[in-house]
Amino acid sequence: MTCEIERKFLVHGFVPPVAATAQRVRQGYVAITEDGTEVRVRRASGHHTLTVKSGIGLTRVEVEREIGAADFDALWPATASARVEKDRYRITDGPHTIVVDVYDGALRGLCTAEVEFTSTEQARQYTPPGWVGEDITGVAGYLNRSLATHGIPPYEDNTRKDDHGR
Amino acid sequence: MTCEIERKFLVHGFVPPVAATAQRVRQGYVAITEDGTEVRVRRASGHHTLTVKSGIGLTRVEVEREIGAADFDALWPATASARVEKDRYRITDGPHTIVVDVYDGALRGLCTAEVEFTSTEQARQYTPPGWVGEDITGVAGYLNRSLATHGIPPYEDNTRKDDHGR
Repeated sequence: MTCEIERKFLVHGFVPPVAATAQRVRQGYVAITEDGTEVRVRRASGHHTLTVKSGIGLTRVEVEREIGAADFDALWPATASARVEKDRYRITDGPHTIVVDVYDGALRGLCTAEVEFTSTEQARQYTPPGWVGEDITGVAGYLNRSLATHGIPPYEDNTRKDDHGR
Repeated sequence: MTCEIERKFLVHGFVPPVAATAQRVRQGYVAITEDGTEVRVRRASGHHTLTVKSGIGLTRVEVEREIGAADFDALWPATASARVEKDRYRITDGPHTIVVDVYDGALRGLCTAEVEFTSTEQARQYTPPGWVGEDITGVAGYLNRSLATHGIPPYEDNTRKDDHGR
C-alpha cells in the first residue's frame, strides 16, 4: 500500500536535458469502476506490473504486484479501450524529482510533470522551475485513467478548482 | 495463466463426510466490467490473493498473485457491494476431486459442486455421484461474480441451456 502526496503540472515545449534517457511506459486499464477503483497493467523498462487502486482522495489505496511478460500479454487485450503510452523522464530539482511524462499515440502533444512530497506542507510550499506550466493537481481529466478513456481534456479544464497545494 | 475445463452442479442437502474439514473462503470483487473482466481478492486458509480474470469462454485468462493481509484489508472495503463467503470441501471421487462450496451470508442455502477436467472429452463423459444434483455448467447466474452481486438466481434458471458437457 502507498499513499501519495503529489502535485501535477502541464509542461509546454518540453526539451529533455541532454543526458536524460526516457523510460518507455505502456499501460492499460483492465477495469475502471464508477466508485473510483482502477485496475492497471503496465510495462516499463522490461518490468510488468498489475496495480489496483481504490478509494478516493486521502483514503486512496494502491496495491501493486509484478507479473510476468506472458501474463501482461494475456491481459493486454482486455485494455483495448483504455491505454496510455508515454516516455517518462526523471529530472532532479534540488531535493525533489520531477517526473515528466511525454505522451504518445492518441495523447500526442500532451506533456505533464509530477512531483511527489512527504507532507502536504512541503507540497504547498513547492515552487516549480520556470519551464513547468499550469498546476493541474487534482484535475480529474488529467488522471491517466481519464486520459486513457476520454483523451486530452478541453483547454477550459486546464485549471485547478481550488487554491491549495493539493 | 490458467484455462479451466470444468463442470458445475447444484447440491441439495449436502452432508460433509465425517473426516472432512472445510476451508473458509471469503472473497470480494473490486471490479466487474461489462466485457467480462473481474478483479477479485480472496482470503482462504490464511492466504490472500488478488486475481484478474478476463475474456470470455475458451479464451478466458486468469492471473493470480499472492498479496499480504494488510493489502487484502485495504482493498476489502472496495468489494462492499459484491462479496461471497463459503465453506469449501474437497471430496475425492475416483480420479477426480469434487469441490463443494457451501455458501453463507446472503447466499445461505446454496450449495454447489465443481469438478475440473484435463480435456473436454473427459468432462463430457463424467458421471457425478448420486448426491450431486442438477448440472449448472455455464449458467451465468451461478458464476461467483453474479452470485456476489445478484444473489441466488430464481429456480427457473437452474437448468443448462445446452446438452454438452460444458
